[in-house]
Amino acid sequence: MTLKDNLHAFFHPDAVAVIGASSTPGKVGHTVVTNMLSAGYTGKLLPVNPKGGVIEGLPVTTDINDLPRGLDLAVIAVPPKFVVEAVRELGKIGAKSAIVITAGFKEAGKEGYDLEEDLKEVCGEYGISLLGPNCLGMMNGAAGVNASFAAGQPGLGSIAFFSQSGALCVAILDWALGANIGFSKFVSLGNKAVLDEADMLEYLNRDEATKVILGYIENVEHGEAFLKEARRASLNKPVIMIKSGTTAAGAKAASSHTGAIAGSDQSYNAAFHQSGVIRVGDVATLFNLAQAFSSQPLPKGPNLAVVTNAGGPGILAADAADRSRLSMAELSPRTIEKLQEFLPSYAAFYNPVDIVADADAKRYRQTLDVIGEDPMVHSILVLLTPTASVDIEKAAEAVVRTARRWAKPVFACFMGKTKVAGARKMLMEAGVPCYAFPEPAVHSIETMYQYYLWKHRPEPEYAEVTRDMEAVRKVIDDHLRRRQAEVVEFEAQQVLRAYGLPTPRTRLARTSDEAVAAAEEIGYPVVLKIASPNISHKTDVGGVAVNLVNAREVMETFKEITARAQRMRRDAYIAGCLVQEMAPPGVREVIIGFKRDEQFGPMLMFGLGGVYVEIMKDISFKLAPLSKQDAFEIVREIKSYMLLKGLRGEKPVNFAALERIIVVMSRLAQDLPEVLEAEFNPILVNNERALVADVRMTLRV
Amino acid sequence: MTLKDNLHAFFHPDAVAVIGASSTPGKVGHTVVTNMLSAGYTGKLLPVNPKGGVIEGLPVTTDINDLPRGLDLAVIAVPPKFVVEAVRELGKIGAKSAIVITAGFKEAGKEGYDLEEDLKEVCGEYGISLLGPNCLGMMNGAAGVNASFAAGQPGLGSIAFFSQSGALCVAILDWALGANIGFSKFVSLGNKAVLDEADMLEYLNRDEATKVILGYIENVEHGEAFLKEARRASLNKPVIMIKSGTTAAGAKAASSHTGAIAGSDQSYNAAFHQSGVIRVGDVATLFNLAQAFSSQPLPKGPNLAVVTNAGGPGILAADAADRSRLSMAELSPRTIEKLQEFLPSYAAFYNPVDIVADADAKRYRQTLDVIGEDPMVHSILVLLTPTASVDIEKAAEAVVRTARRWAKPVFACFMGKTKVAGARKMLMEAGVPCYAFPEPAVHSIETMYQYYLWKHRPEPEYAEVTRDMEAVRKVIDDHLRRRQAEVVEFEAQQVLRAYGLPTPRTRLARTSDEAVAAAEEIGYPVVLKIASPNISHKTDVGGVAVNLVNAREVMETFKEITARAQRMRRDAYIAGCLVQEMAPPGVREVIIGFKRDEQFGPMLMFGLGGVYVEIMKDISFKLAPLSKQDAFEIVREIKSYMLLKGLRGEKPVNFAALERIIVVMSRLAQDLPEVLEAEFNPILVNNERALVADVRMTLRV
Repeated sequence: MTLKDNLHAFFHPDAVAVIGASSTPGKVGHTVVTNMLSAGYTGKLLPVNPKGGVIEGLPVTTDINDLPRGLDLAVIAVPPKFVVEAVRELGKIGAKSAIVITAGFKEAGKEGYDLEEDLKEVCGEYGISLLGPNCLGMMNGAAGVNASFAAGQPGLGSIAFFSQSGALCVAILDWALGANIGFSKFVSLGNKAVLDEADMLEYLNRDEATKVILGYIENVEHGEAFLKEARRASLNKPVIMIKSGTTAAGAKAASSHTGAIAGSDQSYNAAFHQSGVIRVGDVATLFNLAQAFSSQPLPKGPNLAVVTNAGGPGILAADAADRSRLSMAELSPRTIEKLQEFLPSYAAFYNPVDIVADADAKRYRQTLDVIGEDPMVHSILVLLTPTASVDIEKAAEAVVRTARRWAKPVFACFMGKTKVAGARKMLMEAGVPCYAFPEPAVHSIETMYQYYLWKHRPEPEYAEVTRDMEAVRKVIDDHLRRRQAEVVEFEAQQVLRAYGLPTPRTRLARTSDEAVAAAEEIGYPVVLKIASPNISHKTDVGGVAVNLVNAREVMETFKEITARAQRMRRDAYIAGCLVQEMAPPGVREVIIGFKRDEQFGPMLMFGLGGVYVEIMKDISFKLAPLSKQDAFEIVREIKSYMLLKGLRGEKPVNFAALERIIVVMSRLAQDLPEVLEAEFNPILVNNERALVADVRMTLRV
Repeated sequence: MTLKDNLHAFFHPDAVAVIGASSTPGKVGHTVVTNMLSAGYTGKLLPVNPKGGVIEGLPVTTDINDLPRGLDLAVIAVPPKFVVEAVRELGKIGAKSAIVITAGFKEAGKEGYDLEEDLKEVCGEYGISLLGPNCLGMMNGAAGVNASFAAGQPGLGSIAFFSQSGALCVAILDWALGANIGFSKFVSLGNKAVLDEADMLEYLNRDEATKVILGYIENVEHGEAFLKEARRASLNKPVIMIKSGTTAAGAKAASSHTGAIAGSDQSYNAAFHQSGVIRVGDVATLFNLAQAFSSQPLPKGPNLAVVTNAGGPGILAADAADRSRLSMAELSPRTIEKLQEFLPSYAAFYNPVDIVADADAKRYRQTLDVIGEDPMVHSILVLLTPTASVDIEKAAEAVVRTARRWAKPVFACFMGKTKVAGARKMLMEAGVPCYAFPEPAVHSIETMYQYYLWKHRPEPEYAEVTRDMEAVRKVIDDHLRRRQAEVVEFEAQQVLRAYGLPTPRTRLARTSDEAVAAAEEIGYPVVLKIASPNISHKTDVGGVAVNLVNAREVMETFKEITARAQRMRRDAYIAGCLVQEMAPPGVREVIIGFKRDEQFGPMLMFGLGGVYVEIMKDISFKLAPLSKQDAFEIVREIKSYMLLKGLRGEKPVNFAALERIIVVMSRLAQDLPEVLEAEFNPILVNNERALVADVRMTLRV
């Protein structure tokens, strides 16, 4: 029995048992039965209660063992202490799925936590797909299923909604009833003991009744599964989610910049962004977008045309477009010519097209016919101010006609409330989203365009990374054996070389004489850096000296640096100094790091060295594995990108070399799960090459 | 006759004439008469039309000359070509105010523009306060005035609204009728030939019926008057405005960084911010805030308490608070003790206070009584999910009771739609704003808190700046006489010294020998800079060399720099080089500049030198004159402020010295209207002092 089959049985059950069914109105075990009946369920509905009797005209089964073998779905509403046993009995008769409405599990302290662990175990043993515990239930109106204790049932629609918060389910159901919004599936996830958001995404992606998937979550249960299912679903239909609780998780104190900066909210942002999930901050936007996506085609380009019968609202719309990723379409000369044929001379023929206050519905229709045809226009927003001259319902008909005629998204903003109420209802029913003011309309079109871009990205390409894993494992295993968490620079560089990463020529010098010999071999000028496994921020102990031009300077500096470091860190083991080739001229310093997110695995970060990362927080993030395209993007997503591109005639840095280092670090992060955090800092990059000049790695020992 | 008197007559007319009154329903001249009648106007209503007769039972005056002397208000709805003459005749009989509804003026091309100029002139001649032309009219329901051709009249309320867009007036009227929002005054500004937003602010500030002022504008007519009236009004009551058309204005190409970066939208932002006007981006937020401000007291601190009967919505609210300038209140131990007396053990006693799903209205009331009393709580948000256990109307009563009992803002978010409809209506009627979701509620409270902070700022203190105006005028006048727009550095430095600004010791050297002599006098190391009135970006021609340590270096560099500059700019006059004292160690480079905004006068900008301004756009703006507090703020509003405060044990820069330079530049900008733009770049600042190392000034010649 696979999960897929189970989920079909779950949403389309031929038989549903209600464990803990009751004949007392107001009790959950009674509401579930009546909800199923009022939803028009035509399968077998089987109330179960040891007391027996009849509930709502249905004979009561007294024992779970008397239920049919291979039961599709059981809804459980018995006190917490009886739940595990009930599920076990259901397992024994081969039940496929269950909903535990009962609360008092993980959310209710230690005892409940243990109960929930037992519940998981039993479900695992019998292969039961279980929703909850501590949830409102599930609805699939098309199958006549309302397996919940909610009050009221929304209509049918093409929007699926799942929520980790039962309270939000209650509120949204009530709101949807008032706003006349229908659902294809409605799921209260509860504690997510077994079924979680990834399972929902997997099923709803396949579900033909669902055009748009909405979700509210407070955390993701299984990062990897979530990323996989979210990406697959997003490629097929829009997935729009709220992730709350962003502050509680907070960033943990960590030893590297990467660690300190990459808080958990960034990893959620990266996870949503990379898997194509549209993240929104509030419920109103969630449903605005749901409506837009479920009724209109995606815009195939950024160019928005605005048609209006009033200047002010047109400006508001153009402003909103300018703040977004959309552009105001430049109308083709042919379009403008055609408009001139029938629009009055005082109309505005550029975009926004202002057909002015005396416009009637016919003028709307004529204008929209011409605008719709213009291939430079990718989306259309029709604004209407209720003037005396316009028949508002007729204008709405013209908008609907345009929406039906062209495969372009058409949105309306009929301003006001009472006078436009009839037209707005017409538009909504005809699938044209209609707003009271222009800004949210523009935001919806923008989001649809961004989704279009994401959906039509090229397939990700992953770079081949050849590496000497034997050499790498030796360094890592040595450290693990010695329980040494910090990989000392010189050994970390062996790892870099094993990955074929370019590093400055470096020698470890134990004495000042060795330092001079190394410098002579490398060639002046050189850099000296303190070498100690116990010192991670070298500059804090004055442990770095650059531009040493002769033997005398190298010798004196060696003594100075090692003595100072020992004085400042009495317990540190000082191995000596690294003698390193000096950076070539014209370089920029960049940082590439990763930390391992608990949920989503390695998250890479990129930024320019020094204050850009520390003060300006000008950093971009992506989850591993990074494709070539991801590496291209991560270096271009920072504001200080212009510094890499070159100012005033400077040559650009060697981006290909930089991007190569990024994909190699992504590979390294995946190869070595023992590495908790790593940072290449600085990477010196100029027009010719990119060198990893320093590296820090922290192991889980 | 003062404007103040006129505006009283305008809004509270004892007699209103309708010029161009008509007996034909549907005509503007008819609608105005019927609108006045249906608004219940009890003064003298005087239709005027040469045809005479009776309109809606009122005898028609055939000649403006027959109207009573000193008429309070005339509404004009005659064709454009007759408007100026009508206003002149009104002037002759001493009419105080007029509304020109007629369109076809400035907005309709050259001819209309000239007509509007004539109109202004006549109004000036006779002292007529004129609204429009090209507007919808004005309403003051409390005085029974609806001097507009709008359809429908909204109820009474404490919100005043004025708008530059007539279309937006139409849309908002219709929307307000549906949403049951009332107005104290409602004004369509039209072309603003005479009365503009500043006049409205002046009047509405004094208007006792108005608690909140809302406005929509596309531009400000008179910057100085606007700033003055906006500040005065904001100190008294909240002023909330939309300024659209931010993109059309655009930033002009300009010669300095200040010029290029300080687009017109920044100056509007600075103007609104400094005058306390709350700028919003969309109409929905405008009215959300209007409702909040008009019904609830301001929060006296940032601490928000959230009471909820469900976890999810509580998290959404806490997240929103965390993203805002509010903090989640830390409840006092006494409060928590009291809560423990009656809340069940599984409730959450920290904030958000989760009184859990089985809460009834009594539990809400008890909890709110305790929370309201806690002095650490400055504002309260009550969330309710419509569970079966709660009597929603009773809970609403508890919320209202709390709002009445404590002088703290109380907001509600009763989630859902149908079930909470009754309670929501109760709350709104009792003056407790109620939202469907938590985020906009938190945003409203945040905005009220920011306004509270602005309102309670200390009175601005302006620094005394002594300066030698004679020396300054000499430099400026010399340049004006020579029609030389760029003030060459050496002479610009004379201006700085006249203002007592600290500058590095500098000598102008015409020859390499003079340069060496100057360097010997100043002391090595020195800086050489090309001196030419025609070269404003010295580094573009390699015209700056630093750290020259001896006579030989000075001599060679002088020759090199001057030769290169002449080669690169063949037409430039090269005066020689400036020899300058080298910057002290440990300095940061900052830029202070100003450009003269057409509307609002000098706008100062502050940022760290180099990439921080150019690439990161990390700049703060303020309009002159800057108070000491403004100078304090402008240096702390940039992200890179941390670099000035000092990293890792560095000493902070001398902020007092920096702030002094800023207020002096503000003074300079006001003293010298001929200076279009100026830039101190760089200012070198360390822990001890701040030096203006280079300066550029551009004159209007």
